[in-house]
Amino acid sequence: HDLKVGILTVSDSCFNGTATDRSGENLKQVVESRKLFNGRVITKDILPDEQEQIKNKLLHWSDHLKLDLILTTGGTGFAPRDVTPEATKSVIEKEAPGMIVAMLKGSLEITPLAMLSRPVCGTRGCTLIINLPGSTKGSSECLQLVSAGIPHAVDLLRGHKPGVEKTHA
Amino acid sequence: HDLKVGILTVSDSCFNGTATDRSGENLKQVVESRKLFNGRVITKDILPDEQEQIKNKLLHWSDHLKLDLILTTGGTGFAPRDVTPEATKSVIEKEAPGMIVAMLKGSLEITPLAMLSRPVCGTRGCTLIINLPGSTKGSSECLQLVSAGIPHAVDLLRGHKPGVEKTHA
Amino acid sequence: HDLKVGILTVSDSCFNGTATDRSGENLKQVVESRKLFNGRVITKDILPDEQEQIKNKLLHWSDHLKLDLILTTGGTGFAPRDVTPEATKSVIEKEAPGMIVAMLKGSLEITPLAMLSRPVCGTRGCTLIINLPGSTKGSSECLQLVSAGIPHAVDLLRGHKPGVEKTHA
Ligand code: NA
Repeated sequence: HDLKVGILTVSDSCFNGTATDRSGENLKQVVESRKLFNGRVITKDILPDEQEQIKNKLLHWSDHLKLDLILTTGGTGFAPRDVTPEATKSVIEKEAPGMIVAMLKGSLEITPLAMLSRPVCGTRGCTLIINLPGSTKGSSECLQLVSAGIPHAVDLLRGHKPGVEKTHA
Repeated sequence: HDLKVGILTVSDSCFNGTATDRSGENLKQVVESRKLFNGRVITKDILPDEQEQIKNKLLHWSDHLKLDLILTTGGTGFAPRDVTPEATKSVIEKEAPGMIVAMLKGSLEITPLAMLSRPVCGTRGCTLIINLPGSTKGSSECLQLVSAGIPHAVDLLRGHKPGVEKTHA
Repeated sequence: HDLKVGILTVSDSCFNGTATDRSGENLKQVVESRKLFNGRVITKDILPDEQEQIKNKLLHWSDHLKLDLILTTGGTGFAPRDVTPEATKSVIEKEAPGMIVAMLKGSLEITPLAMLSRPVCGTRGCTLIINLPGSTKGSSECLQLVSAGIPHAVDLLRGHKPGVEKTHA
């Protein structure tokens, strides 16, 4: 079955129209190209860098839309208004350090400036939430770095049981 | 002195007898082979994926048995019942991100699916607690990846003072 | 503009005078050599491994001195009195896992014993706080490993806006 995906762009300037949401649009195309995994973009939105608004959107998309995967892009840096990781931490029930390290390790091998990203990955109910950086290049590189694990993670979240050897992750 | 080790297998199917605890048994043999460090398995147990039971066992083994090292295997993945990291977080007093990154970095170099593991490592009192994945292969690989640091960590936890250069970790 | 830097050595033995603060002195020289970034050491201090004292110093240096960067050295290991990471966690508002992974990944490639370090990196207001290990060699290696990101992080914390592509970290 296709993964139900939501893409949330977090950016004051994209929200107020002074910048174009290239990263979110690109992620939508990458998902729908089905080259990384079989997914369908169910919803896509743009929010300003406001923790409460981001939190409420994540809650709605996981608890009501029951998405399999939420990708956020933007707001993971060191600017005072960057609060996407903090909003994400406030809603996830389980952290996924393996995905964080996979993403950071891989992107640090591309550029040392990847250290400026502060991504959070984790789950709420059956929804996997992944913070990607805000740049078009960075977000698609990071999505690719974790894409090998996404279908397996979602399968496990849905309660599918692979062989014992595999379940025991 | 030998490290006093406890091995805790967390798995519904091993607990209810529908699967064999190969990973826990293998870890016991690896520890007792003394190839990685000088340790003795003092206790070994199997629990279902129940956060409260796992937490109580970790508390008993650290506060009462005063083990040097607790290795858990299983329950670190994305299945709804996987709660070993959450139980571990609820008892540790100090996190050990260096061990987590050593384990994840090393295992990601073996397989990208290592990103599906959500290990927690840390200390409670003088006890070092390390979450290993549930598969026999994964758990022994991960134990090997952190084994170089285990005797030093336990030495420091016991209050032994190496030279100044080394204490200042 | 020069970064305003504070260097905090955390060590019972350096505080009580039974050891020399080689690591803190070396960090001061490294910063003032301006080889890594343009910084000036505004203040330098030595504290014992006491969580409350470390916490209060970090609060003073960030909230009152408004330093751009605080480097701590020492107290990040597994000894019972090592509490620098816990003191740091209690004051930071945003965690910086990208810097932690950059530091650990790089130092694990130098020595597996880097897994014994438990560094925390993060921000409070406009101040970036970075825990370095206590050894002279370890602390200068780790500072170098994150130095590429420090000026950019401080620029962003100060509210400078680079091009959109870059802000979206
Ligand atoms: Na972490």
